[in-house]
Amino acid sequence: MENWYKINISKGVEFSIQVNKHFLSVESKIQKIDIFDSVAFGRVLAIDGQLMHTEKDEFIYHEMMVHIPMAVNPNIKDVLVVGVGNGGIAGELIKYPSIETIKIIETDETLVSAVKKFLPKTSAALSDPRVSIEICDDMKYTRRVHDQFDLIIVDIPDPFGPGENYFTKEFYGNCYTAMREDGIMINQQESCFYDQDIPACQKAHRPSVRVFEISKVYQASIPTYPSGHWLFGFSSKKYHPTNDVQTDVWKAMKIKTQYYNTRLHKGAFALPTYVENVLKNVE
Amino acid sequence: MENWYKINISKGVEFSIQVNKHFLSVESKIQKIDIFDSVAFGRVLAIDGQLMHTEKDEFIYHEMMVHIPMAVNPNIKDVLVVGVGNGGIAGELIKYPSIETIKIIETDETLVSAVKKFLPKTSAALSDPRVSIEICDDMKYTRRVHDQFDLIIVDIPDPFGPGENYFTKEFYGNCYTAMREDGIMINQQESCFYDQDIPACQKAHRPSVRVFEISKVYQASIPTYPSGHWLFGFSSKKYHPTNDVQTDVWKAMKIKTQYYNTRLHKGAFALPTYVENVLKNVE
Repeated sequence: MENWYKINISKGVEFSIQVNKHFLSVESKIQKIDIFDSVAFGRVLAIDGQLMHTEKDEFIYHEMMVHIPMAVNPNIKDVLVVGVGNGGIAGELIKYPSIETIKIIETDETLVSAVKKFLPKTSAALSDPRVSIEICDDMKYTRRVHDQFDLIIVDIPDPFGPGENYFTKEFYGNCYTAMREDGIMINQQESCFYDQDIPACQKAHRPSVRVFEISKVYQASIPTYPSGHWLFGFSSKKYHPTNDVQTDVWKAMKIKTQYYNTRLHKGAFALPTYVENVLKNVE
Repeated sequence: MENWYKINISKGVEFSIQVNKHFLSVESKIQKIDIFDSVAFGRVLAIDGQLMHTEKDEFIYHEMMVHIPMAVNPNIKDVLVVGVGNGGIAGELIKYPSIETIKIIETDETLVSAVKKFLPKTSAALSDPRVSIEICDDMKYTRRVHDQFDLIIVDIPDPFGPGENYFTKEFYGNCYTAMREDGIMINQQESCFYDQDIPACQKAHRPSVRVFEISKVYQASIPTYPSGHWLFGFSSKKYHPTNDVQTDVWKAMKIKTQYYNTRLHKGAFALPTYVENVLKNVE
């Protein structure tokens, strides 16, 4: 009998993917974790019933979180990754020889063990000598760090629910303090196509505009995320994401990508009018 | 009991939408037509089991087919629309007072009657005095027209199956001849995220590159289409879609849009690397 994994995308909308083999379904202290192999997307990680990661399209999400800031400041040396510690972001970061340290802080030890076991391709990057993972309370960690990172990537799933505190003025303020003068913060900012997702999108964007000198939103097309149109935030004390992009420097580094390129870099910040209107309301 | 409409997106991938009321399910001479009201997307038109049009996101597809060429040549006067005659494209075209004639050619009379009855918001544009619909063999029609249109919009669903002949050197050649010297042809060119869709995407693109002096591909995020990442072709005898865009002229016309804007115009032509690679193979 065929086995399908159903994802509730919005009221009256479902996305279903056929499962070859279910490897893990476990309730950690924090969340429900499922890992399975699918017909269309290869290995899949789902958290609390939502797709977090598929082998087929994870490159889009991870490339867009890493290469956008790296092309703006190719001198980034010390990176902090807050959140889903599956190695996807680390995998893009380790492509840059110039990066010296990649610190990942993750609250859920069960998740880290699970991805190391069942997502070997993605978690391989976690073995890079520059990468360190600390299982800790992310909120406390960021509160006590000052002037230490050039890039902070916040990979937290949902502005409502367990991740709520990560989409606040307090948390973004802590990131601001944890960064050096040339620091950049990247965070995922949901999608605002379905009306019921607009509050989450605005909740993610509002505090970053208040905390940072520059805070702009960009997009990518990620087929396995709700609506397929996903938003990210680029926040910085001094860099503008498109005026300051170092196209030639980035190209000369010859980093291999499947989604990101420097033409797309600029295009990613040109948002549809309906998205601009949703964001304008909280700026 | 809940009623859901299931769409097969790709092998092992389904998209399901909850139906409030099914208005029509009919086999015309050419295709199976379903029209229903849904919880999330309002009124929906499906053809041969694939979503063609939803009230919630049709604006994205139609705006991107119309405002891209209109911003490049705001002097377009005579337009030919080949294909799905539901009024969606006409609805965007009639926003321009400068457009004089909008000729729609459609092979399926049943479809036209159905959309007039069950998609009243979209089909309203068909009553504009500048719009005429002719039920005819599109292929024969385009073969005998010369030097008559400034813009041809080809809105044909699928390069394999009944629409096959519309994605050929012969058909694009007919469009080339049917257009004036400053003519632009826009066509939908599918998506190439799922491996099984790559041949369709290449089949749509290949002949346009061979027939037109300039032929470029652009994208939009359309949540109800497979993968959500949709491609279009801009082909012309003389205009380049981004070098020749008349940003100030278009802005001064104060056309109301929900997706299109002139910043996004340029960004839409900056494609992901994996898409560039798929297209390069047939250029």
